[in-house]
This record gives sequence, structure tokens and C-alpha cells, in this order.
Amino acid sequence: MSKFKNINPTIIVIFGGTGDLAKRKLFPAFQNLYLDGRMSKKFEIIALGRAEKSNEEFRSYVLENLNIFSRKKDTSDPETQKFLSHISYHSLDIDKEASYQSLNEKINAIDESFGERANRLFYLSITPSFITTISSNIKKIGLAANPKQDRIIIEKPFGYDKTSAIALNEMLSQTFKEEQIYRIDHYLGKETVQNILAFRFGNSMFEPLWSRNFIDFVQITVAEEVGVEERGGFYEGVGALKDMIQNHLLQILCMTAMEAPASLEADDIRNRKADVLKSIRRIKPEEVDHYVVRGQYDAGAIKGKPVPGYREDKGIAPDSITETYVAMKIYLDNWRWQGIPFYLRTGKRMEEKQSSIIIQFKPVPHSSFSYGKEGMTPNRLIINIQPAMDIKLQFMTKKPGLSLSLRPAEMIFDYFACSTMSPEAYETLIADALAGDPTLFMRWDQVEQAWDAIDTIQQVWKDTVPVNFPNYKAGSWGPEEADELLARQGHKWIPNTQTKEELLEDDTDI
Amino acid sequence: MSKFKNINPTIIVIFGGTGDLAKRKLFPAFQNLYLDGRMSKKFEIIALGRAEKSNEEFRSYVLENLNIFSRKKDTSDPETQKFLSHISYHSLDIDKEASYQSLNEKINAIDESFGERANRLFYLSITPSFITTISSNIKKIGLAANPKQDRIIIEKPFGYDKTSAIALNEMLSQTFKEEQIYRIDHYLGKETVQNILAFRFGNSMFEPLWSRNFIDFVQITVAEEVGVEERGGFYEGVGALKDMIQNHLLQILCMTAMEAPASLEADDIRNRKADVLKSIRRIKPEEVDHYVVRGQYDAGAIKGKPVPGYREDKGIAPDSITETYVAMKIYLDNWRWQGIPFYLRTGKRMEEKQSSIIIQFKPVPHSSFSYGKEGMTPNRLIINIQPAMDIKLQFMTKKPGLSLSLRPAEMIFDYFACSTMSPEAYETLIADALAGDPTLFMRWDQVEQAWDAIDTIQQVWKDTVPVNFPNYKAGSWGPEEADELLARQGHKWIPNTQTKEELLEDDTDI
Repeated sequence: MSKFKNINPTIIVIFGGTGDLAKRKLFPAFQNLYLDGRMSKKFEIIALGRAEKSNEEFRSYVLENLNIFSRKKDTSDPETQKFLSHISYHSLDIDKEASYQSLNEKINAIDESFGERANRLFYLSITPSFITTISSNIKKIGLAANPKQDRIIIEKPFGYDKTSAIALNEMLSQTFKEEQIYRIDHYLGKETVQNILAFRFGNSMFEPLWSRNFIDFVQITVAEEVGVEERGGFYEGVGALKDMIQNHLLQILCMTAMEAPASLEADDIRNRKADVLKSIRRIKPEEVDHYVVRGQYDAGAIKGKPVPGYREDKGIAPDSITETYVAMKIYLDNWRWQGIPFYLRTGKRMEEKQSSIIIQFKPVPHSSFSYGKEGMTPNRLIINIQPAMDIKLQFMTKKPGLSLSLRPAEMIFDYFACSTMSPEAYETLIADALAGDPTLFMRWDQVEQAWDAIDTIQQVWKDTVPVNFPNYKAGSWGPEEADELLARQGHKWIPNTQTKEELLEDDTDI
Repeated sequence: MSKFKNINPTIIVIFGGTGDLAKRKLFPAFQNLYLDGRMSKKFEIIALGRAEKSNEEFRSYVLENLNIFSRKKDTSDPETQKFLSHISYHSLDIDKEASYQSLNEKINAIDESFGERANRLFYLSITPSFITTISSNIKKIGLAANPKQDRIIIEKPFGYDKTSAIALNEMLSQTFKEEQIYRIDHYLGKETVQNILAFRFGNSMFEPLWSRNFIDFVQITVAEEVGVEERGGFYEGVGALKDMIQNHLLQILCMTAMEAPASLEADDIRNRKADVLKSIRRIKPEEVDHYVVRGQYDAGAIKGKPVPGYREDKGIAPDSITETYVAMKIYLDNWRWQGIPFYLRTGKRMEEKQSSIIIQFKPVPHSSFSYGKEGMTPNRLIINIQPAMDIKLQFMTKKPGLSLSLRPAEMIFDYFACSTMSPEAYETLIADALAGDPTLFMRWDQVEQAWDAIDTIQQVWKDTVPVNFPNYKAGSWGPEEADELLARQGHKWIPNTQTKEELLEDDTDI
């Protein structure tokens, strides 16, 4: 709480202020923070865009979109009107120095009206290709000259492979110090992802079990029902490995596998996460097919509704080899996790939208119950990140009746059971950036390590055309090879679609 | 299951067939077992009583009571009529050998009608003082002459102290071999008590935590709302230590603390339970006041309704020193539990009826969360035996909101959530006795050890009149000294009345 007490006056500059992200996520986040009293009394949001627009025009555009996208939709509220008065629009030609000069004058004028030099937060909500131009202009004009006051938020992807990420970072470091750069992965702002740390290190009873001694394997799934939609042009040539594995899934892996941090300070947590990325076993080019499966969806049906295949989607080449699905097995070479597989999978056009972590514990060492060791379901801890936001513990219990036989059962904790409101990921992350807390943002070494971890896979895939694309039906759980990846180890993907009712069906044994 | 497949023809002889237990528990249990197909095709129940009654009279008396006490109340069902035809009444004068002779003739006649010598199950549902007479007559006539076929069920109390229990057992052993004697503790037949074994040894994730390394203390509560009711004459001079601690609570302690049995066979389980009783630290006479608290209820109110004190109850001496409450601290001198206190408490006229086991885990070794180690609730596993029949896991989770602060939460598993029917404790136990499975009955060494464990307490209390009786109000949780017993260790009785809703009250931090 304390970190939010003294948020300094801040001028927020949004590059891409008329874009999709600003409209759907950023303005609603700022509005909610404002209504919850989380903004400094002195703040101004300058939205940048190419077109000429008056402040009034832009504010009514923002208001219109708040009505659609904000979780506090009652925009007739006078407080929302006050919030709008803090927003102004500034037309900027991204390539022209003069544009930045006039932005500078505007910022200085605001400082003057505040009676002090405010903090500056530059939010780069634009295509990565513009980052260099913007950064060098910021440097030239000296817009972010105070490393203690000025910060920049950069959306993913940060580069498109290890080499390009290093180049991008070197370029940025000519203008910004590392502590000024807030690399965002919105997954880390999600309540249920943050709760992983709380759950692991706020309780004494899970950590003793959290290792190779008691865990059989870990399964991390980020599945989407959607295809590429309108983003075909962007997605083509990027693919699931870069778009999802390198950031979201590896970050969730870090939260799940990290050692206990000495404190909750940003660098203590980020050091422990970086340790995980460093300990990911690097594989040889000839091992890629053994550890990683890629897929591309064919036509199929989602919840009964027919959908086209990837190659038929808008903006996609008819012989595209971009992967829309990745499953991989990761080993962590450290004391805690040696020999325990972490299975990661992500895909578009899956049967069901679902982000989850499943910890499967080892089977009981010895069982005398009716069906012996084979018939017993292993204990599982299921952490659902979205859309379900709950934690389930699956265990065996006595089947009611005269015999001592067992059946699987589960306990559930619903994260939002008794909470009426919860912040969106972007609110959390923007509040942290305003307060200067980088804990939930990715430090450069994390980004570099994450690229390094998938570097060999990128190299090998660049040179080998997958002969069997498309290899999974839209609406399925991915290609057969992904099942084989686990079957080799005697494991199976755990569906996590079983409801409480199914699990506990009445099989009373009287 | 298999143990029920070949239940042999059996003649059940109930001593005390017109008594309270038979009416409320035994006949409903036999009826339900019959309706569920768990009785042999050839069986006969002979109810014994002093009065002269025709079979018809007795059957309509049973039917009347099934309508009140059976969980399958639809007694118009023709199957229940068929069940009744298996019951006959026999008048017996407990002291007269001739009575046993005519019982013998009746049994032989039934054997003849079965065309084979049936098993015999003698159920002693009578005051303990009759056991000797009955046993010696059974011996004299040779009613239970076949140790492989004939069994006797004996209700608690088995003796009233160690010496008397040994004498009783020696007397019984002149007629019966140990494997013929089924000492019943109906608590062991309860589904939720049996589930303790299933929960502990059917899952791999709890057993690693189940020791002095991770558990802070264990609390076992068996609280009643009722007073002595009509049983004052029986209860006076017996008291909570003999009536509850020596059997129910020590048996639950055994289930909670025992090592994993090699198999589920009766003797493997009973050996491990006996180990627990043997490892109970015996205390010196001068230590009794340090380890044990006794109480007697004064007038008070239960759920708002005034009730009299124990000494005002029917059949109770106005200066009675019988304890209606016991709290004690037990240490187990073995590797697993050294130094971990087990707090047992039982009482009449408590605030709420409740039988439960609470495992409190140690605090987190290190915490960086907002309120530090002090503000954190320790993890708890709560096993509710009755009237609630559930398992709860209390743990810390992130408080929804912008900060990483924690709040307590819980997961619940409701044992009967999806089961429509469940056997009563007596059904389970009778079915086991019919099948010859003594697992849930107490072997002699268990009984002896249990008496031995409380022997010193009995000795000391016999000689010291408690000066402060009555020392707790009806409707409270017992005397203050019971709180001090735990406070010395820095512990507190955990109320276990907090509902899920209270625990998860909306304290969203946005």
C-alpha cells in the first residue's frame, strides 16, 4: 500500500494514443485508477496521434470507448468528466523533430502550471519498428533527461530474436538507464498470476512439497479459442513461439519454479526469476524435434461453429509455415527441479480458452486400497489463471459406503468468490510504473535469457519447412505429436475440463 | 467389497433386544443391510428380553421404531416385511441356565431349518455388570463353541479402569478367543473417521507434511450440546475421562497420528494404532494438573435456552465431583511426533455440538508480505467428523487489489456433497462383524493401553476433590484453565465456527 501513498505529479505521454490498446486498455486503466484515488492530484495525459484533432474531439472519443471497455461504465459520473479534463491530444509526426519540439513545449508548459518539474511516463503503444525513431528523438530533445523521474513503458515483443533484442536494448540504453525501462508483459499484472507468489510463499504447507521429491510433472497451458482475427498481417511470420512462449509462458514458468525471494523487492524477485530462465536446459539443434512440437490449425469447429483454417485466414499466405501452436518439454537444471518435466503448450483455435498451471504430484509410494496404485488418481493442484480464476486441489477420499475404497474428489477456492471488484492487469501495471515499482516488469536479463532459451528452436525452424502443416483441427487440443511428447514419459495432458460435478458423481458404494 | 461376497448364514442373538440401543440403532442397521442385500440369505435375529412377548408383538414394536429411527423410513415396502419375518423374540432370564438351554434349542432348530450349522453373533447390548453371567452361561451350554464361526460384540465401556478391564478380559477369554471378541467403539464406524485413513494414505501430498517438521500442534474436539439427560444415574461416577477420552478421543488420536500400515488388514492397522497408544507419554501423579484440566458445568444457556447445572440434573448428587469436561495435552514419544502437543478436549453442555480434528501447520519460516509473519494465519487442515462432515484447508492468498498483501481463505470438500446415501456407523460395524472383519473393532491391547494412558489421572482424581466445581457455564467452551493449558505453549483453541463467508468477507483492496 505504502508505495502508492506518494505518487508524484506525472505527465503521461502515450505514443499510439489513438490506437487499439489505448482505447481498450490504457484509458480505462487510467480512469479506474483516477476514480480509486490512485493518481497524483497533478497529472496530465497527452495522447499522441498522427491526425489533427481538438482536445474536445479526442475526449469524446475516449468517453465513448470508456462506455464500452471500462469496468466502471457509469461515465455520466462527474468524476469521469473531471478525469477527461486531464487528457489532451497532441498531433505528432513520428519522424519529425519539430513535432517533438512542440511536445516538449507542451510538457514544459504543464510543468509550469504544476509549479514543479513533473515525472514523465512515456508509454510506447506502437509498432516496434518505431521504437528507434522515438527513442532517438526523446534523447535529442532531452525529454527524458532525469533518470529518477522519467520512465518508458515498452510493450512486447521486445525484439524478434536474441540478436535483435540485444540491438534494441543497446539502442534504448543510449537514451534510458535500465531502471527507467518498464518492459510490460500484461500477464504479470493478472491477479491470479500474482497470486502464485502469495500462494507459494504466504503458506508453509505447499513449499515443502514443491520440488522433484514430490512433484511428478508440471503442465502450463495458455490456450485461445480465437484465431488470428484481424491481426493476420502481424501474426504471419511471428508465430506462437515468439508471441506466447517467449514471454507469457516462460514468465508463468518462472513464477511456478522460482526459489523463495529474500524479500518482495523488485530485484530480489527478478533475480530469482532470472535464475529459472538461466537454468532452462538449452537443447541441441538435433534435439529440437524431440523436445518441441509445432502445429498450425486446419479448418474445424469451435463450440459447434465452423471456422476456417489458418491458411484461409485474412492476410495469411496459402502456404504459410507460421506455427499457431507450440508444445514443449522443458527441464530445469537446478537442485530443486532436476529431472522433472515442465510441459508448456499454447495454441490458437483450441477447444476452449484456458490458462492454467497444473502441478501433478507423484503417485502414492504404496497403496493397499481396493484398486491398488493403478486405479488411483494422483494428487493435483490446479491453478486456473483465466477465464476460471480458482485453485483446485484434487485428492482421494473414501467412497461413502461399507468398504474402504477410494474415489477422487476436489476442494475449490474461487479467487473472486467474495470480492466485488478487482483491478485489470493494466491498472496494476500502470499504477506500479507511476509509483516506480518495476517488480512486475521484465528486467533486461530476463528478456535476453528468454530469447536465448528458444534461440535454437528459432534457428532450426527457420531452416526446416514443416511438411505436415496444417496438422491440427480448429477446436481440438492440438496435433497428435503433442500427445506423443508426453506419452514417451508415461504422462498425459490433463484436460482440466472436468467439472466438480463430474468428479464427484454419485458412486456411493452401499 | 469382496469381504461381503460370502457372508455365511448367521444367527444373531441380541442380549438387550428390547433396549434403547437395539431400538434406535441395531434394528435399523440390520434392516438397511438387509435392504441393501448385505445379509446372508439365511439369517435369523433372536431378540432377547426379560418379558414374555409373542413374535408378532415384538415385530410390530420393531416396525414402529423403524418408522422413527431408520434412514429408510418407507416401511410399507414389502422387503421390510420380509426382513421382519427374520426376527423372533425369546424370553430370557439372564441368571437362569434353563433360559440359555431353551435358547440353545431354538438356535439348534434354526440350524436344522438352514440345513447347516450357522455362524453365531452374540450382541451384548446390556449393562456391563451382566457380561460375566452371560459369558459363563454361553460357555456352560457351549453356545459359542466354534471359534471360527461364533463371535461376540461388546459395547463400551470395557471395564472402568485398567485393573477391571484386565479382569473382564481374563473372564471373557475363558469363553472366547481374542479373534471372537468384537469390542465396539461406534466412532470408528463413522464415515468421516474412516476417511482419515483414506485421506492420509490414499494421497501422496499430505503424508510428507504429517510430522513434527511441519505441524505445530493438533487439536481434537468432541463437544456435545446435551447434558446427561436421562442418563444421570449411569454418568454419575463415570465422567468424561472414561466415557469419552479413553475410547473415542484416543481412537481418533490413533487414526490421526499412526504410521502407515503395511496393508489394510485388521492386524496391520491395529498394530499401528496400538503403537500410538503405547507411545503416549505417561505422566507422573504430580504432573496431572499440568497436563489435564477437568470441568463440570454450571447452569447456563445453550443457544439462548436456559439449562440447569450438572448438580441440578436428575440423578446427580448435589456435591457431585464427576467431571463433564476434560481437556488434556498429550505428547507422543516417537520419532514422528516428538515435541508436538496433541490437545484433546471433550465436554457436555458445550456451545455447539462438534467433533473435529484440526491440524495447525507451523508458521511460514520467513515472510516479506505486508503485515509480516505476525499477521499471517497459519495453514490449517480441518477435518470435521460431525455434525459437519467436511475437510477444509485454510491458507493465505493474495487480497485482490493493487498491492501484494494477503488474506486468509479456504477450500472446502464436503464429504457427502454428491452422495445421496451413506451407511450409519452401526451398519458398517455390524456388516464387518458379520463378515468377520475386526479392523474397526478394538483389540485387547488397544483397550489396555488406552486405560493405561489415563490410569495416573484416574488415580489422582480419585483422591483429590476439585474445589472449584462447577467451573464452566453451560453453553461455553469449558473452564478458563483449559485456555491456560494451551496459552503456556503460545497456542489457542481454534474455534472452528468461522464460516466460509466470514473468512472471505469482502476486503478487496483497490
